[in-house]
Amino acid sequence: MRNISVEEIIPLLDLDDKVLGNTSHFFNNVQPAESINEESLDWINPKKKNKSEYINNSKAKIIICDSSLEINEELTKNRCIIIVENPKLTFLRIVNKFFEEKIKFQIHPSAIIHPEAKIAENCHIGPYTYIGKCEISEGTIIQANCYINDSVTIGKNVIIQAGAVIGNDGFGYQRNKEGALEKFPHIGGVIIKDNVEIGSNTSIDRGALGYTVIEEGVKIDNLVHISHNVKVGKHSVIIANTVIGGSTIIGEYTWLSPSVSILDQLIVGKNVIIGVGAVVTKNIPDNETWTGSPAMPFKDFLALKRKLSKL
Amino acid sequence: MRNISVEEIIPLLDLDDKVLGNTSHFFNNVQPAESINEESLDWINPKKKNKSEYINNSKAKIIICDSSLEINEELTKNRCIIIVENPKLTFLRIVNKFFEEKIKFQIHPSAIIHPEAKIAENCHIGPYTYIGKCEISEGTIIQANCYINDSVTIGKNVIIQAGAVIGNDGFGYQRNKEGALEKFPHIGGVIIKDNVEIGSNTSIDRGALGYTVIEEGVKIDNLVHISHNVKVGKHSVIIANTVIGGSTIIGEYTWLSPSVSILDQLIVGKNVIIGVGAVVTKNIPDNETWTGSPAMPFKDFLALKRKLSKL
Amino acid sequence: MRNISVEEIIPLLDLDDKVLGNTSHFFNNVQPAESINEESLDWINPKKKNKSEYINNSKAKIIICDSSLEINEELTKNRCIIIVENPKLTFLRIVNKFFEEKIKFQIHPSAIIHPEAKIAENCHIGPYTYIGKCEISEGTIIQANCYINDSVTIGKNVIIQAGAVIGNDGFGYQRNKEGALEKFPHIGGVIIKDNVEIGSNTSIDRGALGYTVIEEGVKIDNLVHISHNVKVGKHSVIIANTVIGGSTIIGEYTWLSPSVSILDQLIVGKNVIIGVGAVVTKNIPDNETWTGSPAMPFKDFLALKRKLSKL
Repeated sequence: MRNISVEEIIPLLDLDDKVLGNTSHFFNNVQPAESINEESLDWINPKKKNKSEYINNSKAKIIICDSSLEINEELTKNRCIIIVENPKLTFLRIVNKFFEEKIKFQIHPSAIIHPEAKIAENCHIGPYTYIGKCEISEGTIIQANCYINDSVTIGKNVIIQAGAVIGNDGFGYQRNKEGALEKFPHIGGVIIKDNVEIGSNTSIDRGALGYTVIEEGVKIDNLVHISHNVKVGKHSVIIANTVIGGSTIIGEYTWLSPSVSILDQLIVGKNVIIGVGAVVTKNIPDNETWTGSPAMPFKDFLALKRKLSKL
Repeated sequence: MRNISVEEIIPLLDLDDKVLGNTSHFFNNVQPAESINEESLDWINPKKKNKSEYINNSKAKIIICDSSLEINEELTKNRCIIIVENPKLTFLRIVNKFFEEKIKFQIHPSAIIHPEAKIAENCHIGPYTYIGKCEISEGTIIQANCYINDSVTIGKNVIIQAGAVIGNDGFGYQRNKEGALEKFPHIGGVIIKDNVEIGSNTSIDRGALGYTVIEEGVKIDNLVHISHNVKVGKHSVIIANTVIGGSTIIGEYTWLSPSVSILDQLIVGKNVIIGVGAVVTKNIPDNETWTGSPAMPFKDFLALKRKLSKL
Repeated sequence: MRNISVEEIIPLLDLDDKVLGNTSHFFNNVQPAESINEESLDWINPKKKNKSEYINNSKAKIIICDSSLEINEELTKNRCIIIVENPKLTFLRIVNKFFEEKIKFQIHPSAIIHPEAKIAENCHIGPYTYIGKCEISEGTIIQANCYINDSVTIGKNVIIQAGAVIGNDGFGYQRNKEGALEKFPHIGGVIIKDNVEIGSNTSIDRGALGYTVIEEGVKIDNLVHISHNVKVGKHSVIIANTVIGGSTIIGEYTWLSPSVSILDQLIVGKNVIIGVGAVVTKNIPDNETWTGSPAMPFKDFLALKRKLSKL
């Protein structure tokens, strides 16, 4: 990697960010904490105490920090310190710009694409992926070995990782008089809005009659199951191994930790946080944090824990 | 879609079902509740209260309902009301017949099939699927990107969704004196009976020496793990993200909710219901409902909940 | 299968193992307990009581047992009894040698391999698998429909089952001022050491900046999710549906039961056992057994259970 100067990263900063100290330094690598060297770019978690000490111990010459740092001449003498609101965010933008290898967009010749699929000019479709009668907008990346069934509409700049299955029939059966299960037909679809990301081996089922909808900017991790007719509000996060039951609605800016299970037909509000392994059997109002099995408001969870410890 | 008359759906009704009111109406679409229009077919959940009110508010001209509806002249004046035992079941049969696009059966040229595999005349095998030395009966559909290992026997009219892996080696190891894990060989197989359905990205392991058996009519959702030598009784339901440990036996007509984990070597009876997220560490007798982590009979679960709320 | 004599299995025994009784018998099959016949090889679980009775009831002529068996002339008169330390281990070695069909190593012509990938002479790569700019050592088997991204290093004699996705971008985002999630770049890799096994439809993410590391001899089951920068110590076991959060460290010889969820940034010691469905939210010291949701030391779990039963 070539040397990158402080000057080159200034276009990625906000107007009220500050660049202090010696701006003649450069960096040419980013590393996990234990491997940082004199040519690395470093950053400091705002929660860390003793930021000055951390800076004095870091070999890096360019360090991104938030404004809680008490600046003194010592710190900036032979370093460049960049003060920003969210150091990790600034760091990730710099790494994205200078270090991440961009994928070369192509539709792999082995991808099988329905003759009536509409795929925008600038998309990437990996090997051995199947695309049904779908609509896919520009900038979208679908990796290898995916299965995108008919009636799936995918927005711009979406990323779908390998092994994801989207738009398959959901799971709905009625027992007949003989006790056998007859399948509820699935003739609906899936709508995935712009900037959504979907992890590897994740399954998102189509609506039975209507649509399963993943709103703008939602990020879904690996091995997640999203049932028929679910709606996930914009900019929400669904972490690995989570299951969302049929027709459940998840609000916007909501955070589902790993291994959450949410029953069908529920409403989870916006700005909600659900803890790891929670089993959600009730509606959750906006702005609440719930956890536990069965899930309950976090303050009730803590109160119960306290009572149990006194038994 | 063309117009479908009341007359056309009569062959799908039972002998004691009743067709009331104006039978000259037709429908040409099915919709989620919020989008029903004058040319939709509608149905009413038997649990709904105020069925007359629902009917008066529905734009649909043909509505399927159970016999709890109190009929009056007003209701049937300008509508056709069809009285059946299970409205959802009747509705799904009609939609299956008239609206579901039937798959065009073919063995995709990219499917890789073991030269000794026996595949019945009328099967569908999707692109990029691998079929080992197996036997597959007629009417069975295997979607794209599946991996069906040797020694798997699949019955009639089975559906296996994309990304499923069936018949791979199970997970069994012995630690040797050096602490390393040596693998128990898996030379058994998998038997999947008629009318089974298996969801996307689900894994079903082969028996170690004997067989893993999925009996007739079992429905398995996405992202389910079924270990070596498990037996699942006929017409049982296994919902997403569930794990069944090695050699465990599940009875017939049993219902496993999402994210259930069942330890190995257990016996779960028939007509059992296991609640969402339950962690099953004991045998469960026939006809019981269990839930919780660890799972317990539902009445004990409720009693415990009540006691905890009084602490 | 041909007949295998007692003499042929002696090279698989330890020096202090004993072969008693009539050594002229042979076997030509291995079976689950209910199907054992006169030409089967049988073994006895050391935990079984009444081993003599079991032997008298078994049709098998060659039986492997541990030294807790009280030998008498009756037992060995018309049988061969082999006394070893770990009967299941001896049995599996014999079955592996004589009964398991060895895979014919080849790189399938449909596998897509990055031109800069380094693949050792003697590897197997299944159909429709994608291999990025990786290094793969000899004896390694990668089944069909896998996706191995760039920057993955795989040791010797590794087995990766169908549908596994290794080395994809992990799940890390920062919210910007507008509430949208920006992705933390993933430019690290994955290191998989010798003799590791990875189950079907399992996902292992690459490190963000550094590496995700799976040490020697680790066995990972199906549908497991391992996040960015996780380290798993040698000879540990991770059973189906388990999730390990980002940067968490798992010690060596540790056992994770099915459906365990472990939060990010934690340290789980060596020789630890974690019970089925446990939700781990704290560090766990070496040599401890934890279970529950949230997970706690097993003795606390039992004490809590006892107290709850007395409420």
